[in-house]
Amino acid sequence: MRTDLERFFSPKSIALIGASQDLITISGQPLSHMLNHGYGGKLYPVNPRYQDILGQKCYPSLADVPETPDLALILINASRVADMLEQCGKKGVPYVIIFSSGFSETGAEGVALQKKLVAIAEQYNIGVIGPNCQGMMNVADKVWAGFGSVFFTKEFPAGGVSMVSQSGGFGFSVLALCSEGGLGFRQMVTTGNEIGTSTLEFIDYFVRDPGTDIIACYLEGARDVNRTVEIGLKAMDAGKPILMWKVGNTDEGQKAAASHTANLGGAMALYKAAFKQSGIIQVDDVQDVVDYGRMFRCGKLPKGNRIAMITVSGGAGILMTDECVSGGMRLAQLASETTEKLREFVPSYGSLANPVDVTASIFNDLALIRRTLQAIVDDPGVDCIALLNASLQGEIATKIAAEIIAIAKTTDKPIACAWSARNDMAKDAYAALDAAHIPHYKSPVRCGRAFAVLSGYAEAKRRIAAQRNEQPLVIEKTQIKQILTGRSADVTEYEAKKVLAEYGIPVTQEALATTREQAVAIAKKIGYPVAIKVQSPDISHKTEAKAVKLGLNSDAELAAAYDEVIANAKAYNAKAQLDGVLVQEMLRGGTEAILGITNDPLFGPAVMFGLGGIFAEIMKDVSFRLAPVTPAMAREMISEIKGYPLLTGARGRGHADVDALADAIVKLSALAVDLKDHVAELDINPLFVMEKGKGVKAADALIRPKKS
Amino acid sequence: MRTDLERFFSPKSIALIGASQDLITISGQPLSHMLNHGYGGKLYPVNPRYQDILGQKCYPSLADVPETPDLALILINASRVADMLEQCGKKGVPYVIIFSSGFSETGAEGVALQKKLVAIAEQYNIGVIGPNCQGMMNVADKVWAGFGSVFFTKEFPAGGVSMVSQSGGFGFSVLALCSEGGLGFRQMVTTGNEIGTSTLEFIDYFVRDPGTDIIACYLEGARDVNRTVEIGLKAMDAGKPILMWKVGNTDEGQKAAASHTANLGGAMALYKAAFKQSGIIQVDDVQDVVDYGRMFRCGKLPKGNRIAMITVSGGAGILMTDECVSGGMRLAQLASETTEKLREFVPSYGSLANPVDVTASIFNDLALIRRTLQAIVDDPGVDCIALLNASLQGEIATKIAAEIIAIAKTTDKPIACAWSARNDMAKDAYAALDAAHIPHYKSPVRCGRAFAVLSGYAEAKRRIAAQRNEQPLVIEKTQIKQILTGRSADVTEYEAKKVLAEYGIPVTQEALATTREQAVAIAKKIGYPVAIKVQSPDISHKTEAKAVKLGLNSDAELAAAYDEVIANAKAYNAKAQLDGVLVQEMLRGGTEAILGITNDPLFGPAVMFGLGGIFAEIMKDVSFRLAPVTPAMAREMISEIKGYPLLTGARGRGHADVDALADAIVKLSALAVDLKDHVAELDINPLFVMEKGKGVKAADALIRPKKS
Repeated sequence: MRTDLERFFSPKSIALIGASQDLITISGQPLSHMLNHGYGGKLYPVNPRYQDILGQKCYPSLADVPETPDLALILINASRVADMLEQCGKKGVPYVIIFSSGFSETGAEGVALQKKLVAIAEQYNIGVIGPNCQGMMNVADKVWAGFGSVFFTKEFPAGGVSMVSQSGGFGFSVLALCSEGGLGFRQMVTTGNEIGTSTLEFIDYFVRDPGTDIIACYLEGARDVNRTVEIGLKAMDAGKPILMWKVGNTDEGQKAAASHTANLGGAMALYKAAFKQSGIIQVDDVQDVVDYGRMFRCGKLPKGNRIAMITVSGGAGILMTDECVSGGMRLAQLASETTEKLREFVPSYGSLANPVDVTASIFNDLALIRRTLQAIVDDPGVDCIALLNASLQGEIATKIAAEIIAIAKTTDKPIACAWSARNDMAKDAYAALDAAHIPHYKSPVRCGRAFAVLSGYAEAKRRIAAQRNEQPLVIEKTQIKQILTGRSADVTEYEAKKVLAEYGIPVTQEALATTREQAVAIAKKIGYPVAIKVQSPDISHKTEAKAVKLGLNSDAELAAAYDEVIANAKAYNAKAQLDGVLVQEMLRGGTEAILGITNDPLFGPAVMFGLGGIFAEIMKDVSFRLAPVTPAMAREMISEIKGYPLLTGARGRGHADVDALADAIVKLSALAVDLKDHVAELDINPLFVMEKGKGVKAADALIRPKKS
Repeated sequence: MRTDLERFFSPKSIALIGASQDLITISGQPLSHMLNHGYGGKLYPVNPRYQDILGQKCYPSLADVPETPDLALILINASRVADMLEQCGKKGVPYVIIFSSGFSETGAEGVALQKKLVAIAEQYNIGVIGPNCQGMMNVADKVWAGFGSVFFTKEFPAGGVSMVSQSGGFGFSVLALCSEGGLGFRQMVTTGNEIGTSTLEFIDYFVRDPGTDIIACYLEGARDVNRTVEIGLKAMDAGKPILMWKVGNTDEGQKAAASHTANLGGAMALYKAAFKQSGIIQVDDVQDVVDYGRMFRCGKLPKGNRIAMITVSGGAGILMTDECVSGGMRLAQLASETTEKLREFVPSYGSLANPVDVTASIFNDLALIRRTLQAIVDDPGVDCIALLNASLQGEIATKIAAEIIAIAKTTDKPIACAWSARNDMAKDAYAALDAAHIPHYKSPVRCGRAFAVLSGYAEAKRRIAAQRNEQPLVIEKTQIKQILTGRSADVTEYEAKKVLAEYGIPVTQEALATTREQAVAIAKKIGYPVAIKVQSPDISHKTEAKAVKLGLNSDAELAAAYDEVIANAKAYNAKAQLDGVLVQEMLRGGTEAILGITNDPLFGPAVMFGLGGIFAEIMKDVSFRLAPVTPAMAREMISEIKGYPLLTGARGRGHADVDALADAIVKLSALAVDLKDHVAELDINPLFVMEKGKGVKAADALIRPKKS
């Protein structure tokens, strides 16, 4: 794997293999774009059909090129790409972009062709980008090594955003629209089928690249997604937010999964967990990148989530409040000293409470905004400030912008504006704000949303820092691994709970009976009432098979029930292997939860938490984290579900033992890591969460072993 | 109430009372704006301090003005407004905009001042707009009768959008930003404290106004919201979509409410119900108005929700699919004939399935988009079509736009484009599309969102048409009204269920016992097991008081339980009046639902449906409709909650009796209408929904009478 990507983005020389004289075609465009945009290095078109293109000497073959170029662009038919890649290898070319389509996206034949490319790239250690991509653009260094409409643009302002995109068309449109929105790009690369340098490797490079401030990414999927958290945390440490499109959200789920956990844990759930664990910000639309990018460019992070607003129009304040509150912020409560100061100059028909409404009287008193802003910046209960300036324009706008800039310089609290004057009506004001890196938005909603993202990022940073201070629990159980090795049938309740117990997760009192008499003897030891359940590796869903009886109160009831469940199990599946009947204590009270593990082929093991079967299955009210899960992360998983109030005293219940629940999650995470080569899926369903101080108990469990 | 609002928006003459020579102040601006923008009628500034302003003769008093103006603008201090309004009344001025602040927004004194204005307006039948507003703008007729930064703009393009806003600053910023986004306004009015002509009256006028195509509204609250559904339906009949900001979404709820229904039915829930019942579209941001407005301007509604996409870049197709599907649309399944046609010219590395990816090969074959679009327009399984043209620009863009326009003319299927070229790079293409009313968006996400709104509107129109064909059930029960008249204490279970039964809602078998012996006799008649519940108007939450016992199986158990609940009730509230103990059949099986009524002082009665206590209370998974509710609306209420699968066989349950449930909702709606002057709140909690064919039964109920 090549990691000298600065050589890729700033090549000193480029070969264009298959360059065409027809400048509008895909193979004709790159040379023309490079020349038009003033690329400063050497260009070597390669095509036996031409003597020269656009005045550049054209070489009959790559071998004839007089030096080893830093980058080669392959612009020829799919069938000839492998041969040409091999020539690149022999020539020692470090980086190759394969633009050609006709590989894995077309079916079996294309897949075979693509595999050949992979082998050649490995053999010669070539950093391959593509195939089936639109190339790259280094705006800062004028390397326009790609094709598409965006390349016909005269120029783009250089800036600090770097982006990697698995979609060429969409990726370059983001670059174009962001530049229109005032957010400049540094470099942009499209990776297409991504057989070589991956999206995550590019992000990793952007984290190291000193010229990149903000990282954007369009991702459909990747083979190295297990690195997401690691790279996301690196970016966070470097102070570079990652703005991520993860598409394909209409997840079909894994239909063949045995456990609820695996059914609920489609790829999207795991991506979202990875993003949450590393502070990666999901975006929906191009405008998000512009809006959030501008906000982050202010270079300040709020110390808390308390926002104050100063508005010249009450309506805008209400809109922005709705947006900020639903985005996790709080309205700052102004100190009484602040209110007293404001009372001196804010009109009586305005509002002294946050959002502070200075009203349209600014037309009668221009100093109103400055004095109000200063008073609020000085309030220790305020973490960040929004100015809602409606459509102020012309000279008034320019004056007010200057006042905001002057005050912003004196504080480390982020300040941004919702300012809806047309660009041509507040040109000077906007230019001054841009130069001072004070974000401004055309609507209070967009301003509020961007503030909520900034605040959420700052909060994630604090939260993740605390989690990284915790040591993840490690448990190693060699014996359990031995027991699970080579198993293919589901491990049912009795055995599965023994595994849980080994990792310290409390389970119900129980024992296995193979006769009616044994069952009665066990029940006497445990004490009535008891539950019984048929144990069979061939019956995963015991309730469906009517192979479960609950609340048995006497020897006689138990004996009758024993015969019934055995008969039901046989009726359900005549061929099922019956291991016996589990006799189990009945739990009283408590709240039913579900815990689980899904072991994704790409992400590795992840842990799930949810409440009761209905909450998890019907409402999909569950939380996921990639293992290992620390205690702080476990508490976060518990508190982020919608049903959380059920554990904290809602509907007249007592408080549930959330500490014990978090402890069980941490232990399950240790199990997931220790058994990652042995367990494919695991459900604890239900886990009874008893009242505070009384712990948790797994009442049923199922393990699907990982087939080796 | 005046309804000749065309006179307000297009006045032939205007008096400006309190006009100032200081043209930057609030009282100075309107005259200057009217003159600068070429108002064609007569202007009469009124101010005893001046001889003239800007060359216009200034009158010492309104009485001196030589005619009765169609409109007066009051621009003076709050304390003198009442006097001036009276002068307007005496002069016979039909419409007055009161700009002045200092009324109900400031406290008790302001409220008193404002009441005076209301009385004067009523006495003289003046149509008052404001106070505390920023006036209006009739873009088409050049009436710029307001103040604020937006009024300094040179001109706005006239268009078909009319807007009424309770916030001046925000409202005018919408006008400015929409015009920047290419969506022209017809008229804009801000209503401030809204003591006279209301937001809904303005919407009603826009529905009648032939020049208005699209209606926008910013609403904080209104005293005539009960007209929302009526006016929304009128607009739908007129083919004019209403785009609505309803702000103040962080609803505090009505803390004093006795019932779950009233607690869950804050104002926002009722607004949302009204919008749903009349096809009003809620918007979040200014960009929404631009995006949706442009989409509606295409003048076509899709016949179904099946969208087909043609893309030159796979990524954009994925993004748009996510957006459309989450917005309620489906990807059209292309007919095999269509696929065969496409196979002739779409490259092998493209995609023939929807989204059809013609790939970047359009650079090599310009006819690709035209041929593909024609094939898809011809497919009967497609209701609307999106073209995702990435950043195509220059001449190619112009050619493709012309081809799209030509095909769009031949079909009634809506066609729109996601097209992200910069404005200056595809100027001709965009201008041609605009002229042909073909919507285009800078990103696939915005295009998808707008399509989902158009499709949702078309679907709402079909849905509502079906509901309007149904006759609402009417039940009249004079006797029940007599019983409830003058009651102030809560009506508890026993009596409340008798009321329900009168309206045809099935209730549990039960009878009231006042002695232990009576209780046993009743239980024998009903059959064991039974439940018992203390009945007291002073104990609304019986479970909390431990005044309920379930599953009693014998005379002895019942007798003991009887004594226990009486003792518990007394311990809970020593002063509570105990009416007796209700002995009730125990229901087995079934799914617990909650039905209820909340009777809002503004909206009138509304009906709620939800599942089980936890689903409703913790997950807030409930649906509301304003009464009357027809059978089709009732089924919609049932199916729109997230927990709906629990009624249709999820988790191995049988299908629940959804028909009987819908019937109970319709009957409850009839009760709500019949008793709207007598019932403030009503809960049926739980209502047991038995399996299909076995009906529903109310197991508990509570009525809070409406105090007269």
